[in-house]
Amino acid sequence: MSSDLLSSKFTDDDTTAVNTIRTLALDTVNKANSGHPGAPMGMAAAAHVLFSRVMNLNPKNPQWVNRDRFVLSNGHACALQYVLLHLLGYKVTIDDLKSFRQLDSITPGHPEVGVTDGIEVTTGPLGQGFANAVGLAIAQAHLGATFNKDGFPIFNNYTYMFTGDGCLMEGISSEAASLAGHLKLGNLIAVYDDNHISIDGDTAIAFTENVAKRFESYDWQVLVVSNGDDGFTDIFEAIEAAKKEISKPTLIQMKTTIGYGSKDQGTHGVHGNPLKKDDTVAIKQKFGFNPEEFFAVPDVTKKIYGAVGEKGAKTEAAWQKMFDEYSSKYPEEAADIKRRIAGKLPDGWEKALPTFNPSDAAVASRKLSETLLGKLSVAIPELMSGSADLTPSNLTRWSNAVDFQPKENGLGDFSGRYLRYGVREHGMGAIMNGLAAFGPNFIIPAAGTFLNFVSYAAGAVRLAALSHLRVIWVATHDSIGLGEDGPTHQPIETVAHFRALPNCNVWRPADGNETSAAYYMALTSTHTPSIIALSRQNLPQLEGSSLEKANKGGYVLHDAADADLTLVSTGSEVSIIVEAAKALEKKGFKVRVVSLPCWEIFDQQSKDYRLSVFPDGAPVVSVEAYTTLGWSKYAHESIGINTFGASGPYLKVYEKFGITGENVAAKSQQVVDAYKKAGHFVVSPLNKVLL
Amino acid sequence: MSSDLLSSKFTDDDTTAVNTIRTLALDTVNKANSGHPGAPMGMAAAAHVLFSRVMNLNPKNPQWVNRDRFVLSNGHACALQYVLLHLLGYKVTIDDLKSFRQLDSITPGHPEVGVTDGIEVTTGPLGQGFANAVGLAIAQAHLGATFNKDGFPIFNNYTYMFTGDGCLMEGISSEAASLAGHLKLGNLIAVYDDNHISIDGDTAIAFTENVAKRFESYDWQVLVVSNGDDGFTDIFEAIEAAKKEISKPTLIQMKTTIGYGSKDQGTHGVHGNPLKKDDTVAIKQKFGFNPEEFFAVPDVTKKIYGAVGEKGAKTEAAWQKMFDEYSSKYPEEAADIKRRIAGKLPDGWEKALPTFNPSDAAVASRKLSETLLGKLSVAIPELMSGSADLTPSNLTRWSNAVDFQPKENGLGDFSGRYLRYGVREHGMGAIMNGLAAFGPNFIIPAAGTFLNFVSYAAGAVRLAALSHLRVIWVATHDSIGLGEDGPTHQPIETVAHFRALPNCNVWRPADGNETSAAYYMALTSTHTPSIIALSRQNLPQLEGSSLEKANKGGYVLHDAADADLTLVSTGSEVSIIVEAAKALEKKGFKVRVVSLPCWEIFDQQSKDYRLSVFPDGAPVVSVEAYTTLGWSKYAHESIGINTFGASGPYLKVYEKFGITGENVAAKSQQVVDAYKKAGHFVVSPLNKVLL
Repeated sequence: MSSDLLSSKFTDDDTTAVNTIRTLALDTVNKANSGHPGAPMGMAAAAHVLFSRVMNLNPKNPQWVNRDRFVLSNGHACALQYVLLHLLGYKVTIDDLKSFRQLDSITPGHPEVGVTDGIEVTTGPLGQGFANAVGLAIAQAHLGATFNKDGFPIFNNYTYMFTGDGCLMEGISSEAASLAGHLKLGNLIAVYDDNHISIDGDTAIAFTENVAKRFESYDWQVLVVSNGDDGFTDIFEAIEAAKKEISKPTLIQMKTTIGYGSKDQGTHGVHGNPLKKDDTVAIKQKFGFNPEEFFAVPDVTKKIYGAVGEKGAKTEAAWQKMFDEYSSKYPEEAADIKRRIAGKLPDGWEKALPTFNPSDAAVASRKLSETLLGKLSVAIPELMSGSADLTPSNLTRWSNAVDFQPKENGLGDFSGRYLRYGVREHGMGAIMNGLAAFGPNFIIPAAGTFLNFVSYAAGAVRLAALSHLRVIWVATHDSIGLGEDGPTHQPIETVAHFRALPNCNVWRPADGNETSAAYYMALTSTHTPSIIALSRQNLPQLEGSSLEKANKGGYVLHDAADADLTLVSTGSEVSIIVEAAKALEKKGFKVRVVSLPCWEIFDQQSKDYRLSVFPDGAPVVSVEAYTTLGWSKYAHESIGINTFGASGPYLKVYEKFGITGENVAAKSQQVVDAYKKAGHFVVSPLNKVLL
Repeated sequence: MSSDLLSSKFTDDDTTAVNTIRTLALDTVNKANSGHPGAPMGMAAAAHVLFSRVMNLNPKNPQWVNRDRFVLSNGHACALQYVLLHLLGYKVTIDDLKSFRQLDSITPGHPEVGVTDGIEVTTGPLGQGFANAVGLAIAQAHLGATFNKDGFPIFNNYTYMFTGDGCLMEGISSEAASLAGHLKLGNLIAVYDDNHISIDGDTAIAFTENVAKRFESYDWQVLVVSNGDDGFTDIFEAIEAAKKEISKPTLIQMKTTIGYGSKDQGTHGVHGNPLKKDDTVAIKQKFGFNPEEFFAVPDVTKKIYGAVGEKGAKTEAAWQKMFDEYSSKYPEEAADIKRRIAGKLPDGWEKALPTFNPSDAAVASRKLSETLLGKLSVAIPELMSGSADLTPSNLTRWSNAVDFQPKENGLGDFSGRYLRYGVREHGMGAIMNGLAAFGPNFIIPAAGTFLNFVSYAAGAVRLAALSHLRVIWVATHDSIGLGEDGPTHQPIETVAHFRALPNCNVWRPADGNETSAAYYMALTSTHTPSIIALSRQNLPQLEGSSLEKANKGGYVLHDAADADLTLVSTGSEVSIIVEAAKALEKKGFKVRVVSLPCWEIFDQQSKDYRLSVFPDGAPVVSVEAYTTLGWSKYAHESIGINTFGASGPYLKVYEKFGITGENVAAKSQQVVDAYKKAGHFVVSPLNKVLL
């Protein structure tokens, strides 16, 4: 029976199923009295054809590694996705649909990975999903090239994406689309909901470019479906044609009617608000549904989606059988796949992390990072590096790296683990999110740009944090220490920005041991992105640093009993406060020195530990070549840069802004004197009443 | 003589001039031992043709309003621009070229507006200049449509831009290009340095899209010059053809050789480092220059550029004559133009700002902003509003606004003052920067998106701040108060990010009077961008607020002698701390209430004033529905949200995170009790030793 139900001959039953999707989405939005009914109603046919006839998935095992991936880049249409997940048999009940957009439900206002089974990536911020899908497609291509053997297509899934006008207006999708075309990602299929409507009205007011031609310019295949509202066969054939084009991604330009069925269909009136009651009644009548009934699922719809579930279970079982054979024939590869599924790093990987002594040479932390990436690339095969066209500056490419490139261009192949992202930071960030979202340890993406330009990717970094994805930003040239490039390139606010972002670890290692710690923690923080800020200039190996201590996020580098002062800093300024401390000690002051490479990790330590680093009794002065904003959390007084930087040789720039051992010593002495004079008990800034 | 020298027949003298540019740029980079020689050498011919034969400019008056604008979007090539400015007779001397990239020189590592005469916009961060140029072109089109009369083309300048592969890979340029094509900006001419090289190497590794086709898809005219190294006539004719196409922007795809003349020309070896000595010698010899001589300018080059200067002075004089006639014929319009040149707002504009009493109705601050924009649009004709496709949510469009649109599409015209930016936040930000950069009061751009998505435009906001541009971000839906859209749309870190950015005023008004203050200060802060964070939900009019007090950035809303506690908050949470204060007062506590709508403005007040708002003697507790990061600058203890938000009706979300009067009162009481118990003298967080 199921084969009949799911044949490529579409029947009235399919029309019923599509109208079930529409009315369920409508009821879902109406019940919440909030949400977007238009796109779900317009894209219901495309969703039905894709999910019932094309995609390989097993609702009973949403984590099956070779499932086809689906990304709803126009995430505001998520009522559609939740309805589909319900019909398919994922853990989304009718009650969950009724709790749409309610507090602590599994059906929030936009799709969130980790919250709802079957959601692959968090979407809503426009354009992100598009680039995530490119990342998911790269992941498949890489894993296929790495693990597939003759007769064993272990990884051969497709990535499907729905995207709307909003996503395509965003620059991030242009970046990702250009790269996807360059990479010839034939496994990527985008369905463009070409409904001519965005929030401001008709796209005629702001978006009149020729989208098809633009995608052809990126070397995509472009197919057009003119009857996306009900042209089931045309939709199906377009998707099949897209699957057949294996050396180009495909954009299916699907003409649809937003809010199909509503009296206001085809207008922005149906975009972002629940429909009126009389309209809802009329729509249900038009579709042959009882307007008095809510959240109704006709039997025929249940049957179709039941068959899809059965087919999916069989598909996974067949894959599992193949994988078992593969395991006996290729035990090593299979073990590696199983390790990745289990989310474990290879045994002993951490031995790749070098440690340093104070007698070792001064080295730029970007150079330390290069050494680390080289060693880690051997120890951790799932590590993929890359850069936004700053490879010789970021030092992100290990010496024998192979580029991830289509074989045809002769510059690498899909087994390659180095990505040339081009000057596309935002796209890079969201592609990394897609790479990480493929599955636990399948790919650990790391990629470089200047710290200042991580800001271009702020939207993607935020979603990595919200989505609990382990991605690593190799953020070099991390301060005025970059020198001559000047204030356009010197971050001031950047680190404060990402320290303010929840679930994002910002590292600023001061030397070799701390750089090893940054990578250790970044790689083991499986649900958190890390930004590792690295210097252009050389940094000395510090007396008192160690990987273990730095792994706590902050520690006492140099202690002193009955201290007059605690100096605290990060990264390249730690050696400057060490110098200041020495000068002050010569004058008879007792000075403690604290290195605080990662605030977020430090904040997770016990209060006892934190207070041992920042005890009561003496003032704390912070020094960092950034804005002082945020530092009063740890310090009574702060030395920093609350203006933009300056272009010049870096030591002169440091001098201009008073970030020198001498000036820090002088300012600190002022603080100590003033505090002694005031004579108040000095409470540690960490001694808080509220958490 | 000058007419001969500048005829469209190019001679050997022009070759000498171009090679002068090349050798000067080379000497400039070599002397600094830092910088980018490749693009200046490759683009020297294009620059020479453009600046000597085409552009209308007067080096003696860089602020002449009808000058053609030039934007170097590939700002790393600025040695080229500095050399040109020197040759043209701007205030850039040979000594300035010798101080390239040195501390406090006027020739910093990337071009900075305000630092160097003749630089229109700050560039370097790739893609920004491209979008700035679109803004400059919109400004001209708007001013022309507003002020030009038959026979009086007061505003008819062109905007020229050089752009490279890096800029065109960035999504921001895609956004701006798509909009420029839609708007049919025939006054915009981009010269694309198609040299096939970026930092990572040949563009074959990451950027293989068909750029010409892509720009055609945006409805640009695309012209190709195949011999950009020395095809003077072809370059000239392409630019002339671009000028003739008045209903489309033009991209001139100019094939050049990066580092033209070097033994490594055409490779990334010449991109970003000084050339070796032997190479430099060989280049000078090849060009017929004395390799022993540095910073040499042959007489013939001086003559040509002298003639350009003379021509420019005449051009401005002719314009001035026309403007004088215009002034007598159209005195009102001329007076308005003169006012704008003088950088003054219209007399009495501030009367448009409404004030409110506590008995007035509760209103969402986005709605208050809508009212304000309506009134200000009448009082300030240079105010241009817009939105990134969120007009009905941002409420940025006044009721009788005309859209800025090409007449041909029937949706508005160029005199319109409402911009439909599309879903293109980053492009919007940089276009606003270009609008503001046209000249003092020609256009004051304001535009809306959700606060959370201002982050997409972080790169542009940063450059507004660095460039001292008055642009206004209307950032609505500014917290968890947006409710159902959920954590993907609820800002947590955003305000901390922009508070950390130098020279950027972040406003979060709590009621009507504070919203008026935010606009008052945004409009009068002529050298600072402002982000005005506005609520989706209704806010009561507060007892004790006033425009004057809020203009100080922070003030005591409700005072109490011998207070036990100061509560401080911003925006929608101020009414919550008022509620908490009332509850605490019922219990016998004496509570001061402070509203702090703009930290940056408050920080500019005298220390006495600041300490009067946050005095010693009692703990300060802050409350804000954001990250607490940064608050310890003002408060001993903070209540906030250090995780992501949640999807649900907004009052329930506030409750979930404990941002309620009840919880704030309970937590505050804990603080007061703990501080009393400890018995230490309570020092105000603002009582700092340093600064």
